[in-house]
Amino acid sequence: AFTRPGEDDTIAVTNPTYTLYGTLAEMYGVRVENHPAAAPQYSLPEEFIESPAKILFLPNPNPPIGTFYPAADLECLAAVDPDRLLVIDEAYVDFAPNDAMAVYKKYDNILISRTFSKSYSLAGLRIGYAIARPQLISAMNKIRDSYNVNRLTQAAAVAAWNARGYYADMVNRIREDRAFLAAALKERGCTVPESHGNFVFARKAGAKKLYQQLKERKVLVRYFDTPGLDDGMRITIGTRAELEKLLETLDSLG
Amino acid sequence: AFTRPGEDDTIAVTNPTYTLYGTLAEMYGVRVENHPAAAPQYSLPEEFIESPAKILFLPNPNPPIGTFYPAADLECLAAVDPDRLLVIDEAYVDFAPNDAMAVYKKYDNILISRTFSKSYSLAGLRIGYAIARPQLISAMNKIRDSYNVNRLTQAAAVAAWNARGYYADMVNRIREDRAFLAAALKERGCTVPESHGNFVFARKAGAKKLYQQLKERKVLVRYFDTPGLDDGMRITIGTRAELEKLLETLDSLG
Repeated sequence: AFTRPGEDDTIAVTNPTYTLYGTLAEMYGVRVENHPAAAPQYSLPEEFIESPAKILFLPNPNPPIGTFYPAADLECLAAVDPDRLLVIDEAYVDFAPNDAMAVYKKYDNILISRTFSKSYSLAGLRIGYAIARPQLISAMNKIRDSYNVNRLTQAAAVAAWNARGYYADMVNRIREDRAFLAAALKERGCTVPESHGNFVFARKAGAKKLYQQLKERKVLVRYFDTPGLDDGMRITIGTRAELEKLLETLDSLG
Repeated sequence: AFTRPGEDDTIAVTNPTYTLYGTLAEMYGVRVENHPAAAPQYSLPEEFIESPAKILFLPNPNPPIGTFYPAADLECLAAVDPDRLLVIDEAYVDFAPNDAMAVYKKYDNILISRTFSKSYSLAGLRIGYAIARPQLISAMNKIRDSYNVNRLTQAAAVAAWNARGYYADMVNRIREDRAFLAAALKERGCTVPESHGNFVFARKAGAKKLYQQLKERKVLVRYFDTPGLDDGMRITIGTRAELEKLLETLDSLG
């Protein structure tokens, strides 16, 4: 028999982070612990590390800043309680120095999730995968919707995986352009925390107005109107031409 | 705020019917009322009609027999309680005399669901749609997974819809072959209730053994090892050549 979801369940997240963990948890009546991480380092908060929640969700790298937590940090989270699940969301991992597989192998309470939406450019396909111990996968299979990945999607994901050399080249290009963009934004007075994603977060006085002015000129970046993020913009690494267009537009705004 | 699912929720289904309603309800901790409908007519049970459940699920036609409930039956269900939702699953409706749109227009508590898996031959795509009042659709949108239908699937479904003349011809062929198969099975001593789906349910003494013998000869039909269904087989209408192969194999079994 299944227990009803949410009755005494809690998850823990840091803040800022990907907001959908909290949204989905609320949808299922699950309580959400929200632990602020402080700029500029965004070190993992002690309350998050020691949280009594059943599941911790940590994207690594963590959007929208792009913070990358090294293996020692992840081990620290996994070691606290073998019955507490650590979900490491590696949506952006291909843009980072390394993945968490080495840590995963040392602990039984880690689930790694990945997606074809970022480094494989297949966001329109809604396909990803999870890596976890058989016992957990088998529990998830019990409540997984039947036939939850359709045949076209499976074929496309396999084709993308077989073409991973092509995508590795693209990822390298994006890393180079990320460095180019970060440097160019710093030259223009922005504060840019080191990002390990396919985006940078650029802080500048008047960020909200800047975002609106860019939008009026059809340059779309992401603005988050929430404390801790409302002083900057997340800029995705597009093509080099798109980045130059962004920089020109910023310059034209004076 | 969302209420937690399942805490005091009940759905009602008839029996036999599509089994996934019950499975999914149990997964969410929702109680399932199961109301047996009696052969050979499978009329809607009085307890189902009067059920205090929050939602009634009725496929029309209803697998695996293929029973079709006329508009008067559906009106009867919808009229009992305006706050009770009637879900009419029209997965097989294109093989039936008519759909429930006329009834739908007269009541505010009906949701019609449809799929591209049957009459549009796109089972591998996992795509369907629902028809309901804006208020209900908007409530469902709140808890719908984000981006739940991917772009390839949307394109394929639109293409199939635009080719609906082609599929209408196919549906007519299947109706003709359903009549052909039902008659041929009756000639061979089977009892075949009238089916309005793309399948027939054929009852015969020793059905389970027959199913196994067919399987050994690579003719695959569906056997349900449950009371009320274990005396027959559900046979999907394949190509005419496949149906003839089935009949030949039955004949060879004596």
